[in-house]
Amino acid sequence: LLFCSTHSICAKPNIIIMMMDDMGWGDLGVLGQPAKETPNLDQMAAEGVLMPDFYSANPLCSPARAALLTGRLPIRNGIYTTNEHARNAYIPQFVVGGIQDNEILLPELLKTAGYKSKIIGKWHLGHQPQYLPLQHGFDEFFGSPNCHFGPYNDKGTPNIPVYRDGEMAGRYYEDFIITPTGESNLTQLYIQEAIAFIENQTRSNNPFLLYWVPDATHTPLYASRAYRGTSQRGLYGDAVRELDDGVGLILGKLKELGITKNTFAFFTSDNGGALVSKYHGGSNGPFLCGKETTFEGGMREPAIAWWPGTIKPGQISHQLGSIMDLFTTALNIAGIKPPSDRIIDGTDLLPNLINGTVNINKPIFYYRGNEMMAIRIGLYKAHYWTWTNSIKEFDKGVDFCRGENVVGVMTHEQMNHTDSPLLFHLGRDPGEKYLIGNTTEEYKGVMPGIMAVVSDHKKKLIPGEPQLNMCDGSVQNWAPPGCEKLGDCLPVPPSHPHKCVWNH
Amino acid sequence: LLFCSTHSICAKPNIIIMMMDDMGWGDLGVLGQPAKETPNLDQMAAEGVLMPDFYSANPLCSPARAALLTGRLPIRNGIYTTNEHARNAYIPQFVVGGIQDNEILLPELLKTAGYKSKIIGKWHLGHQPQYLPLQHGFDEFFGSPNCHFGPYNDKGTPNIPVYRDGEMAGRYYEDFIITPTGESNLTQLYIQEAIAFIENQTRSNNPFLLYWVPDATHTPLYASRAYRGTSQRGLYGDAVRELDDGVGLILGKLKELGITKNTFAFFTSDNGGALVSKYHGGSNGPFLCGKETTFEGGMREPAIAWWPGTIKPGQISHQLGSIMDLFTTALNIAGIKPPSDRIIDGTDLLPNLINGTVNINKPIFYYRGNEMMAIRIGLYKAHYWTWTNSIKEFDKGVDFCRGENVVGVMTHEQMNHTDSPLLFHLGRDPGEKYLIGNTTEEYKGVMPGIMAVVSDHKKKLIPGEPQLNMCDGSVQNWAPPGCEKLGDCLPVPPSHPHKCVWNH
Ligand SMILES: [Ca+2]
Ligand SMILES: [Ca+2]
Repeated sequence: LLFCSTHSICAKPNIIIMMMDDMGWGDLGVLGQPAKETPNLDQMAAEGVLMPDFYSANPLCSPARAALLTGRLPIRNGIYTTNEHARNAYIPQFVVGGIQDNEILLPELLKTAGYKSKIIGKWHLGHQPQYLPLQHGFDEFFGSPNCHFGPYNDKGTPNIPVYRDGEMAGRYYEDFIITPTGESNLTQLYIQEAIAFIENQTRSNNPFLLYWVPDATHTPLYASRAYRGTSQRGLYGDAVRELDDGVGLILGKLKELGITKNTFAFFTSDNGGALVSKYHGGSNGPFLCGKETTFEGGMREPAIAWWPGTIKPGQISHQLGSIMDLFTTALNIAGIKPPSDRIIDGTDLLPNLINGTVNINKPIFYYRGNEMMAIRIGLYKAHYWTWTNSIKEFDKGVDFCRGENVVGVMTHEQMNHTDSPLLFHLGRDPGEKYLIGNTTEEYKGVMPGIMAVVSDHKKKLIPGEPQLNMCDGSVQNWAPPGCEKLGDCLPVPPSHPHKCVWNH
Repeated sequence: LLFCSTHSICAKPNIIIMMMDDMGWGDLGVLGQPAKETPNLDQMAAEGVLMPDFYSANPLCSPARAALLTGRLPIRNGIYTTNEHARNAYIPQFVVGGIQDNEILLPELLKTAGYKSKIIGKWHLGHQPQYLPLQHGFDEFFGSPNCHFGPYNDKGTPNIPVYRDGEMAGRYYEDFIITPTGESNLTQLYIQEAIAFIENQTRSNNPFLLYWVPDATHTPLYASRAYRGTSQRGLYGDAVRELDDGVGLILGKLKELGITKNTFAFFTSDNGGALVSKYHGGSNGPFLCGKETTFEGGMREPAIAWWPGTIKPGQISHQLGSIMDLFTTALNIAGIKPPSDRIIDGTDLLPNLINGTVNINKPIFYYRGNEMMAIRIGLYKAHYWTWTNSIKEFDKGVDFCRGENVVGVMTHEQMNHTDSPLLFHLGRDPGEKYLIGNTTEEYKGVMPGIMAVVSDHKKKLIPGEPQLNMCDGSVQNWAPPGCEKLGDCLPVPPSHPHKCVWNH
């Protein structure tokens, strides 16, 4: 695939992946948020393809992001844990591991076709020096290796650094301020960085990958002063409005530069809305539960594909899709073959997006840590395992399904249904409320086909070395590269490696 | 207000009110139904104003419909019960009462301005001869006085008649077939009737009111053969798709006749999706509970206003609205003053729709039978009473909030919170999950204003004579007008009036 823009004779298309943090499926106006406060995203959908059946590869940040950039399930690419069964793990700054060198990331491959790649926002694939973005194919980096968690003023633990490319530029709460009430100009910085990168690459006639991953919708929420109090929805909605305007500014810049016909843009989120955060979390629309779970609310994501002139405007596609497909789709757009020495879970969505065809048999796997919890094929979803969280966590107020109660499905024990999976029809029952009895003709007609796919999947599965098993206070961001220039290196305490505890 | 069409020098605008039965807020693609199967309604919204904050006046059929046509709360117009506290009542065929002559219905008033009015579909304001549509201002009637409940073949109870104007034209399940599997051409008949009425009135240069109230989305669901199996959502979705196409055909006819600029059309539903019917009920999107309840899922309705040339296309209005407003708005469109001898609850929405202004202080009252359960003003909603249904009904499987569980809010006892109402912020919490504590500054700041409105409302309230208290098997549709011509009169049993039992 080669396309011609006004800026070069026959340029490779640019690729923009905008992935939000903990934004829910139901947060977009076009997907039914009652406040309808995302005019730019709704417009993007009107100009592109809305994909209501699009999924993350995991209900948590780090594994989802690793899956997008490798095109592979976390259990293959190593961003998971085996410390306990079916546990969500991610990369807070005391985790030792990160993305391995033997994983091939999207920007590494795009580089072979002359692309320049930039990540703006949250990386989350490891904060030790060998795991940082510039070690894995990105040419530029502005953002942070971990979540923007505090402490606000506790020097006993280092604040998360913000990087400019290979070196830290400061730390959250010290140099990059997020006030206790949630005011911050970070999203504005991320928007400016995106605009500048697009302008620079266009001026240099360089095809580019912009991986725009702001995190304002992840608690602690933040929005800049101009957006504070502008939403019906409180601070969460303020953050969404600012990001929505950011999307509008980025797409507007493409229009201004005349490169829309040579730019593929995709919008999505890394996992479902965090119901645990009450109204500081997003909305999962009509779907069950949220972040941390393998119910639809945990992994069904807002998704819009946009490419004027190539993708027909105003379409809705029920193609099942996954963030891992962005890897394969981006490679196809750049004219690069995916690696053939390993299993790639992503498939190329471009034929579906361009021709409006739907591959109904594409399976979606719902993993939690080292366990395949569920699978979707067509409109059917079968739960092999169910779990929300332990009753002990729940009794402490940690509720991933706030206000919901589907008996026998939202289990506080890890329930093994492998012999007779819980089957739902997501068309007539998107909320996973009405079990299809295992004695019905429907069940008997559908399950053998699903079981065959699962059996094949498990047979071929070679789990990667789990990277999220070990923790160590000494690996925290005490002295990131560049700290000495800023006089912001903290003393590194002695190493005490231990198995990480993952409660969920 | 006078507008000029291509068909008359200065014709009064036509008015089309399309109200669905038990369709939920979340059933429209544009409001987030994941299957996105309502292209015609989505297009209507794109050409008009979508109103995400629009309400019924009651969570059940008969009171809601009486409210629309009188512009008055059911407790004023009499379509409610006092047999027990806070009970939903409607008009199955053993109910004695119906809409009273001293109530002034919309078509009666429109007649004074030269309008012809037709109701197509479900009336539900009384089936005894004195209560039928032609006795209350309608010029034409095609449809039924009650729900299309069975019996399929039980002659011990009469099947519901279908009327052509003042006389029955046959009965459901006998002459107007709905098969046990839900196949029926009724929606097609209702579409044809609408098209023919529009054509006839346009040809005669008559301004018209079309009150289009098909009931295919009320259980037992039905769809015509061409629509069976066409939806992701099963039979419910098939019914929605057929109705959506009906809306497209009706609006298309207006375009074909060149009368769009002289026609105000409004789409809504009479109450929330019936979660009690599982996947045979509609979707209430992110809202709590459904039909029969005064939570958002019971009374928040899909709503689209459409008037090319007068209402700007593609708008979203957060104006609070009620189906009672359609009464007052329609009167204004026809240049008629509302009755001044009684309280009219509806307000004229036209200024808001045309100018995009929002009257934030308009209160929405949520009644259940004789009790004001809740009130919304702006983004705040205060529950004065909470109730789902009795634990006895719930234990029988009657669940109006399937899969949901908001402790202390979804109560199985009738709980009186009048002294300290349960307060929610519907902007950041559309699902009514996060109580605003009554010791917070927010609560103390907001509640006095709400309480003043409630106090004023109650002070001025003069309840109407309750019409839904008495039941009698002899008043059923044994021998409706016209039955003798069809040889379909059944013997009327002796009268045994008794108090109706309303469980919910
Ligand atoms: Ca996340
Ligand atoms: Ca109804």
